[in-house]
Amino acid sequence: MRSVAPATRARSPALAALFEPESIAVVGASEDATRMGGGLILKFLDLHEYGGAIYPVNPKYETVNGRKCFPSLADIPDPVDLAVLSVPATVVRRTVEALEPGHVKCFLVITSGFGELGEDGRRAEAELMALIRDKGGRAVGPNSVGSINLWNGAVPSITQLLDRKDVAPGNVALASQSGAVGAAILTEAERQGIGTGHFVSSGNEADLEFSDYAGYLIDDDRVGIVGGYIESIREGAGFIDVSRAALEAGKPLVVLKVGKSDAGAVAARSHTGALVGSDAIAQAVFDANGVLRAADGDQFIDYMKVFDKTSASRGTRVALVSHSGGAGVLAADAATDAGLDVAPLPEELRARVAEILPDYAGFNNPLDATGPMVFRPDILARCLRILLESDHYDAAVLSVKLIWRNGLELVDELTKLRADVDKPFAVSWVAPHEGAMEAIRKAPFPVFGDPARAARNVAARLLYDERRRVLLADPGPARDVEPGAAGDAPLDGVEAQKAVLEAYGVRLPREIVAATIEEAEAFRAELDSPVAVKIASPDIAHRTEVGGVVTDVRGEDALAVACDTVNANARRRRPDARVEGVLVQEMVSGGLEVLIGAKRDPVFGPMVVFGPGGTLVELVADVNMLPAPASEAVARRILEESVLGPVFRGFRGGGPLDATALAKTIARVSWLAADRPEIAELDLNPVVVLGDGEGCVAVDYKFTVEP
Amino acid sequence: MRSVAPATRARSPALAALFEPESIAVVGASEDATRMGGGLILKFLDLHEYGGAIYPVNPKYETVNGRKCFPSLADIPDPVDLAVLSVPATVVRRTVEALEPGHVKCFLVITSGFGELGEDGRRAEAELMALIRDKGGRAVGPNSVGSINLWNGAVPSITQLLDRKDVAPGNVALASQSGAVGAAILTEAERQGIGTGHFVSSGNEADLEFSDYAGYLIDDDRVGIVGGYIESIREGAGFIDVSRAALEAGKPLVVLKVGKSDAGAVAARSHTGALVGSDAIAQAVFDANGVLRAADGDQFIDYMKVFDKTSASRGTRVALVSHSGGAGVLAADAATDAGLDVAPLPEELRARVAEILPDYAGFNNPLDATGPMVFRPDILARCLRILLESDHYDAAVLSVKLIWRNGLELVDELTKLRADVDKPFAVSWVAPHEGAMEAIRKAPFPVFGDPARAARNVAARLLYDERRRVLLADPGPARDVEPGAAGDAPLDGVEAQKAVLEAYGVRLPREIVAATIEEAEAFRAELDSPVAVKIASPDIAHRTEVGGVVTDVRGEDALAVACDTVNANARRRRPDARVEGVLVQEMVSGGLEVLIGAKRDPVFGPMVVFGPGGTLVELVADVNMLPAPASEAVARRILEESVLGPVFRGFRGGGPLDATALAKTIARVSWLAADRPEIAELDLNPVVVLGDGEGCVAVDYKFTVEP
Repeated sequence: MRSVAPATRARSPALAALFEPESIAVVGASEDATRMGGGLILKFLDLHEYGGAIYPVNPKYETVNGRKCFPSLADIPDPVDLAVLSVPATVVRRTVEALEPGHVKCFLVITSGFGELGEDGRRAEAELMALIRDKGGRAVGPNSVGSINLWNGAVPSITQLLDRKDVAPGNVALASQSGAVGAAILTEAERQGIGTGHFVSSGNEADLEFSDYAGYLIDDDRVGIVGGYIESIREGAGFIDVSRAALEAGKPLVVLKVGKSDAGAVAARSHTGALVGSDAIAQAVFDANGVLRAADGDQFIDYMKVFDKTSASRGTRVALVSHSGGAGVLAADAATDAGLDVAPLPEELRARVAEILPDYAGFNNPLDATGPMVFRPDILARCLRILLESDHYDAAVLSVKLIWRNGLELVDELTKLRADVDKPFAVSWVAPHEGAMEAIRKAPFPVFGDPARAARNVAARLLYDERRRVLLADPGPARDVEPGAAGDAPLDGVEAQKAVLEAYGVRLPREIVAATIEEAEAFRAELDSPVAVKIASPDIAHRTEVGGVVTDVRGEDALAVACDTVNANARRRRPDARVEGVLVQEMVSGGLEVLIGAKRDPVFGPMVVFGPGGTLVELVADVNMLPAPASEAVARRILEESVLGPVFRGFRGGGPLDATALAKTIARVSWLAADRPEIAELDLNPVVVLGDGEGCVAVDYKFTVEP
Repeated sequence: MRSVAPATRARSPALAALFEPESIAVVGASEDATRMGGGLILKFLDLHEYGGAIYPVNPKYETVNGRKCFPSLADIPDPVDLAVLSVPATVVRRTVEALEPGHVKCFLVITSGFGELGEDGRRAEAELMALIRDKGGRAVGPNSVGSINLWNGAVPSITQLLDRKDVAPGNVALASQSGAVGAAILTEAERQGIGTGHFVSSGNEADLEFSDYAGYLIDDDRVGIVGGYIESIREGAGFIDVSRAALEAGKPLVVLKVGKSDAGAVAARSHTGALVGSDAIAQAVFDANGVLRAADGDQFIDYMKVFDKTSASRGTRVALVSHSGGAGVLAADAATDAGLDVAPLPEELRARVAEILPDYAGFNNPLDATGPMVFRPDILARCLRILLESDHYDAAVLSVKLIWRNGLELVDELTKLRADVDKPFAVSWVAPHEGAMEAIRKAPFPVFGDPARAARNVAARLLYDERRRVLLADPGPARDVEPGAAGDAPLDGVEAQKAVLEAYGVRLPREIVAATIEEAEAFRAELDSPVAVKIASPDIAHRTEVGGVVTDVRGEDALAVACDTVNANARRRRPDARVEGVLVQEMVSGGLEVLIGAKRDPVFGPMVVFGPGGTLVELVADVNMLPAPASEAVARRILEESVLGPVFRGFRGGGPLDATALAKTIARVSWLAADRPEIAELDLNPVVVLGDGEGCVAVDYKFTVEP
């Protein structure tokens, strides 16, 4: 795995000033806490007992709530860690202009009416950011609802949840581009008993962005999970770096990335382009770096809950326990669907649970303890303990309903289990008694309603841990072929492109571009296989569409006919195209057709793409993508997990295909994409993968080069 | 659409006796209501003021709760509508044996320890059912937790929810094979304000099964939705009939069908078999008959809520309103993903909402009313009303959070809107104030938490209505080719199978089976195209795997070589195979390869299957399936909605493909599958679809015939 140099992550003093400020100035201070402004922020700082210096700023007042009030930010004699700006946009500008450089470390801009209002707003925003930089500061927002650190009471925010003093901090940290969505998630998470210690509403992200906040937060020992509501990622490299750092630290990065429905707007110039929307690229970056993506707000909160309230796992074998056969089946379906191993109950464990369960119980996995056990939560908890303490299972799900008589007893037993056994488990508890709700909320293990939901969330934990192990073990991309000088050749024309591909170790069919029939026949006669005859023209991208390809050509006469055919077709359908002759190629047959492509994303840079190829490429949406350069091992693993996996293990009754050669070629193409920024797109299709040990051959390819 | 003859649905008096009993006997009566038995059932009948006759039965008591107690069921002098059996299995048998035929209409068997315990239990269960039939009765269960009709207080059940007298009935009816899951759903639905009027725990379904209950319930005017938790469907035709009746009545049938993870157990003998698990067949039946399938218990309850609390829709254009840009994006992503039309805000409506919103609001769809509107729920409701009352939208989603000051006002405004406008809308309300919770629960419109969840549920409503319109408009399957006598020919051998396919109007390549090279050459010379040469053997199913196919054969010499090759390969790899000669076929090229298959399911009967074909068939999981016979119009629609749709509209820059011919061929194959029960499987692959108007040709096929 690539190691993250600390220098690449934002360790700016501005972030420390934001989350651990020794002083906070509130520009727009007042005693009116009924409106969303400085008055409310001052109220919250006092309510949550912020211990640093507080400087109210407002030219209208001498004092605010008994504190001296300064006419302007510049009038505060001491340096200020964090200045909160909750005044009209024009006043924001004047306030910053009046400052000495270095006077304020971080500006939290609550004020809205900047970039979100269009072109004029974006210009004003850029000017303000330039001004803030000139004054040696950094900025949160504009259009932020504030920042919260519940550990130290530094809560300069207008979020209504702060109206309650009893909100307990916890290990979740949250950054949100939408103040409303962020505050809603924060409130709902609190209601469900998930403690959030840090929250920042990042607003328009005109300066500091998600990866800056996340980079700071994962280094805080109190933070165990970082969540982000993200509408756009501006700087891909920073995001990847912080994802990697989170992965190394074992602190899950959970994102709610929206805007999928706009993804189709990216124009598609080739098949690779058409298959790969920008959202799919973000997804590929998430996958490659262990970032968990939630489908919606509910799942986002579920992920926070399960990662907050379970310990890391060591495998994917899950035990399922219930007092209802139906609930067990629901959990089993969901666990299997999610990719967990619902491993059979071994005889040894069966004997142990049989000692405490009725003899008509269902001694399988799922373990059906039977209905009467609804009155014996102690026995349900003991079953769970027996299974979790054994070496046969890595995690468990207990599904119960009601338990109205002694729900608190179940919470107690499971709390002990959580303390004793270092393995994840979750509880599905449908319709508990009101009296048990607060205990369930505060429980140190995650409780969900539906059994399938509990199983899916345990799966999220186990599969994250599994992916983390794999990603951390990966040595990272390494060249196995040095392209040398040939790899630097320009990419104009068929021969040049061929030379570059060969320099990177991509195997192509033996071929020539023949200017005459005689030349073509000489080459054909030398080969020991049928040939394909294709029109050779730099102007014709998809040769099949103009009738420019004849395949399976055998013998001298057939070759002559084929050469005539492709020339005639090309002349008729593309009279303007420059024709260099005919391409006579060794025919590679009997293998599976795949595609390997490359694409350059404006945010995340070069990506390598692969999936089923040939004429059915449009039918198989299951394209895989990796940031380039990609490691051969990762390509191999993704290949095996993909729709191609079973085909590679044995295609239509034949032997296995050469997965090693394909993975190597994917990695080589990824280096080419990474090395040559002028390649906007590259499409190797089909690449024919032969039997194990026989390699793979790129039969056709197309470069899209941008200077 | 096929109309449902009422006679085909269970209208047995036993079901009326179950849900509307004039008398209930409780066998196993006692005054002890602390255990799950007759005592508890009697308590619940009294608590819910059941008005019919109640007969306690127990030889141990003279009276129970002041009522006369009978020593045996047979001792009750009057006929009994419903006898509840909550006594040991041996007593159940004796109780029924002692009866006069016709004395009891329906037996509700709470007793467990029958089919769920294995072979012996299944035998005892079958014997009990035979006995009950002999006595002229029908049975619920065994292993049922009872039945509930909250409209009339007929609640012979041990479900704990009945402990509360204030549970209000509603338009949802529920049948569940699992008592525990059913009771859990019932309880959770009630907690969320969804009224369930009828509930039956169907247990082992040894006699009456889901379709019997559903068939009765959809005819009840108080029932608007029928939900089912289903582990297995025993009788496919009955299920299909009741699905159709529900569709005609506009009463959604919502199922939670579990056991997906067992689907893989069905052995796969051909590609069609491998692609089509039994769960996929159930899914195809659901799709073809408008049955909604929930993925888990949460979604099941969500569906009940949205169908209970919205009216039917007339289109799929949805308006999204929020006071937060982020919430709007979440809803828009989910609505688009689900297939709704997030239609732009027309200028006329923009002008109308602009009159009441701040000028910096986001006047799009989603409409962002902006943050301050959190204090003006009246304005949010007015926006929703303006959009819903216009002709531009068919439905809406309002996303709000908190609204702690005047949440009740929002509920009031939306309640009025619900009464005034006959279009569906849902509300996403994150973290409402405790004080508004009860009003939200009782609201006549559905309220969810997450904006994406609200949008997905509105989509479920709109897409159900859309599918219902399409299904009801479909004229149903009709033959366009009469196979005549040729269609009845036996299916042994290549020629016979070919004749049957041709009799059903399936176009095959021109071909002969040639016994000699001369015969083959004469045929080839007559054709004006290249040919394929294939080994002709009844013993070789997949010819490519033995090297038994040479394609694109042109000219006399090539033909001779090809014939030698396939014969030699077949002899070498399958020396035991009977060889009838070589098959020389017209080569059909330039089209798209698809597959059409048929398969007979033990529960649902014949199914027709289609999807991408050729050698990549294993890669494309997107196979479509329809019950056979299938209508051409439905096949056409499914084709256009499938992964093949865009390819048919234009493949690699070419013109459209002949979707009409393919849909016709799918329908014809479906008739063949329906007419000939001995066809266990049929695999036409590839079927080459040519350009529009040029038809499609089944190039290869394989029958699996079972006598």
